[in-house]
Amino acid sequence: MKIKIDSPLDMHLHLRDEDMLKVVAPLSAQTFSGALVMPNLIPPITTKEQLLDYKNRIEEAKKYNNFKPYMTLFFKSDYTYEFLKEIKKDILAIKLYPAGITTNSEDGVANFSIDVLSPVLEAMSELGIVLSVHGETNGFVMDREAEFIPIYEKIAKRFPKLKIVMEHITTKEAVKALDEYENLYATITLHHLYITLDDVAGGLLRPHLFCKPIAKRPEDRMALRKVAFMAHPKVMFGSDSAPHPRYKKEAPGCAAGVFSAPVALAALAQIFDEADALESLQKFVSQNAQKIYNITPPRKEVVLEKEEFLVPSSYENVVPIFANETLRWKVVDVL
Amino acid sequence: MKIKIDSPLDMHLHLRDEDMLKVVAPLSAQTFSGALVMPNLIPPITTKEQLLDYKNRIEEAKKYNNFKPYMTLFFKSDYTYEFLKEIKKDILAIKLYPAGITTNSEDGVANFSIDVLSPVLEAMSELGIVLSVHGETNGFVMDREAEFIPIYEKIAKRFPKLKIVMEHITTKEAVKALDEYENLYATITLHHLYITLDDVAGGLLRPHLFCKPIAKRPEDRMALRKVAFMAHPKVMFGSDSAPHPRYKKEAPGCAAGVFSAPVALAALAQIFDEADALESLQKFVSQNAQKIYNITPPRKEVVLEKEEFLVPSSYENVVPIFANETLRWKVVDVL
Repeated sequence: MKIKIDSPLDMHLHLRDEDMLKVVAPLSAQTFSGALVMPNLIPPITTKEQLLDYKNRIEEAKKYNNFKPYMTLFFKSDYTYEFLKEIKKDILAIKLYPAGITTNSEDGVANFSIDVLSPVLEAMSELGIVLSVHGETNGFVMDREAEFIPIYEKIAKRFPKLKIVMEHITTKEAVKALDEYENLYATITLHHLYITLDDVAGGLLRPHLFCKPIAKRPEDRMALRKVAFMAHPKVMFGSDSAPHPRYKKEAPGCAAGVFSAPVALAALAQIFDEADALESLQKFVSQNAQKIYNITPPRKEVVLEKEEFLVPSSYENVVPIFANETLRWKVVDVL
Repeated sequence: MKIKIDSPLDMHLHLRDEDMLKVVAPLSAQTFSGALVMPNLIPPITTKEQLLDYKNRIEEAKKYNNFKPYMTLFFKSDYTYEFLKEIKKDILAIKLYPAGITTNSEDGVANFSIDVLSPVLEAMSELGIVLSVHGETNGFVMDREAEFIPIYEKIAKRFPKLKIVMEHITTKEAVKALDEYENLYATITLHHLYITLDDVAGGLLRPHLFCKPIAKRPEDRMALRKVAFMAHPKVMFGSDSAPHPRYKKEAPGCAAGVFSAPVALAALAQIFDEADALESLQKFVSQNAQKIYNITPPRKEVVLEKEEFLVPSSYENVVPIFANETLRWKVVDVL
C-alpha cells in the first residue's frame, strides 16, 4: 500500500544553530516542504538582523531547495508597532515563552498581566501576525498546561482577531479550549500522539522520550488522537523535534526534547493507518496549516509505502525517537 | 543543637548481594540498629536454605556487630502451612510483589484472586507473620498505587488478624486507607517525604531520583509528611534504599531505585527539624516499628548535630540521593 502526501509542513521545529543546524536542517528539508522554525537560540531571535542571518544559515544548511523555513521572532513585550510592521513580511509568527519554562527560554515573559502584553498583542492583532505560545505555568509538571488555559482564554477574549496557536498541546483541557474560542489553534507533535508518561517513566526511565511539555495521561493522549485523526481544522502537525547531542540526553540532568523530524512522516503514516485515519493525514500535515497561516509552501510530493523501516540508532550524534525500532511505514520517494 | 536517636530501624531495605552487598551493608549497619531486608534477589528468597545463606552473607558483610538483619521471604501462593510454621522464627515478614512491577519481581503474584492467595494468607494470619506488600497495579504510572488500594482493603477485611504493611506509600489514598483498616500499616521512605514528580522530571530529568513507586503530586507528599511528622503509630520509616551501580542509573533504560541508606538519618533529622517535628523522629524511625513488629533491636545510640554535611558524590560506584549537596544535619557519633 502506498500513499502520497503533498507538501508536508512541520509547524513547530527546532533547527538549533551551527553544527547541530547542519545535521538536522537537511533531515527536515528532505521530506518536508516547509517548517515553522522556533527562535529560542542563545541569544533568542529578537532583531531583524538576527532573524535574517539565522534564515540565511538555515538556507545554507538545508541542502534541499524545495524547503521553506518560515521564521518566528521571540516574543518581547517591548517591541514597537513600527518594528513589527517592518518585520511582518519576514515572519509567520511571534513565539511567546514563559520565562525559564523550557530550553533557552530564560528571556521569556515573566509577567502575564494584560497591561504588559497588550501593546504588542494589539499590534500583532492589527498586523495579522500569529501568536505562537508555549503554554505552561511553572506549577506541578503534570498540571502546567491545564493551568495555563485561563491565560490562553484571557488573551483569546481580549484579542478576538489575533490568531493564537497553542503549541505542542498535551492535554484534554487544551483540546477542549480549541472548540471554545474561535481564535485558538493548536499544533500536536508526533510523540504526544504516541506516548504517555508511562513510556517515559512507567518502566525503565527513557531519557530520549523526556520532553516539555511532559507526556501526560492516557485520556489526554486519547483527546489529542481524536482531533488529529479527524484532522480537526484547527490542529496542525508540529513535530517540536528538538535535537540534543547524545551526551546531553544520556546523562543525569538530561535535557528536554524528543528528536523526531527524520522519522515523523513514516511514524505519522503508521499511527494514522492503525487508526484507520489515513485520509486525514494530508490535512493534518499540510492543508490545515496552509489555511491557518495562509501560506503556499513549495511543491513536494512524498510517497510513503507500508514497508518496514528500521530507524537508525542515531543521526550523527543525535538519537531519534524509535531508534533501532522498526516502523511499518517508510518514505520511499520524494518528488 | 544535638539530638540522640535510640536504635534506629530501617523497615524496608535492599541490600542486594555479592559485591554490592559488601558496599552497602556496612553503610546501613553503621547507623541503623536493624533493617527489614527485602528478598528480591535473583532468584528470589523462597526457601529456608536461601534465606539462611543470605542472612549469613549479610552478617559477614555488615562490619558492625550491633546491626540486626530482619529477614523476609518472597511471597509465593504455594507455600505450605508446615513450611511457614517452620520458617516463622527466621523471618519477620513475607513480601508480596505483583509480578513484574519492580526490580527482580518477575516471579511475583500475577493473580490476586482471594482463592489463590487465601491458603498462605490464612496460615500467615494464624502464625502471626506480617504481610509486606509492594502495592501497585500495572496501570498508568501515577495511578498504580491508588488503584491497588482496593486489593489492600480486600485482604485487610478478609484477614482482620493479619498485619499488612503497605510498603513505601506515596499517595494520599494510601494514607487514608491507614485509618480505615485496623490491620493496615505503612512504611514511608526518605525520598517520598522530600520529592515529587517535579523533582524527577519537572526541570531536567534526574535519574537518581527515579524510583518505584514513582514520586507523586504535592498533595500526596503533604499527606505523607503529615503522618510522618506526627509519628502516626501505624507508620514506620523504611528507606527502600535501592542501590544500582552508576552505569545502570546514568544511561537510557535507567533502573528504578533511590540509594538513601547512608544519608537517611541526617536527611530525616533535617526535614523533621524544618517541620518542627524533631520530637516525632524517634518514634518514626524506631518505636513504631518495634511495636508493630514486636521486636527489640540491638542497642545503638546515634547522635546527630545540626552541622553541615557534604554528601559524597558516590559510595564506591553507587550515587546517593543528595550527592554533592550539603545537608544541615549530620551523624556525629554512634554509641
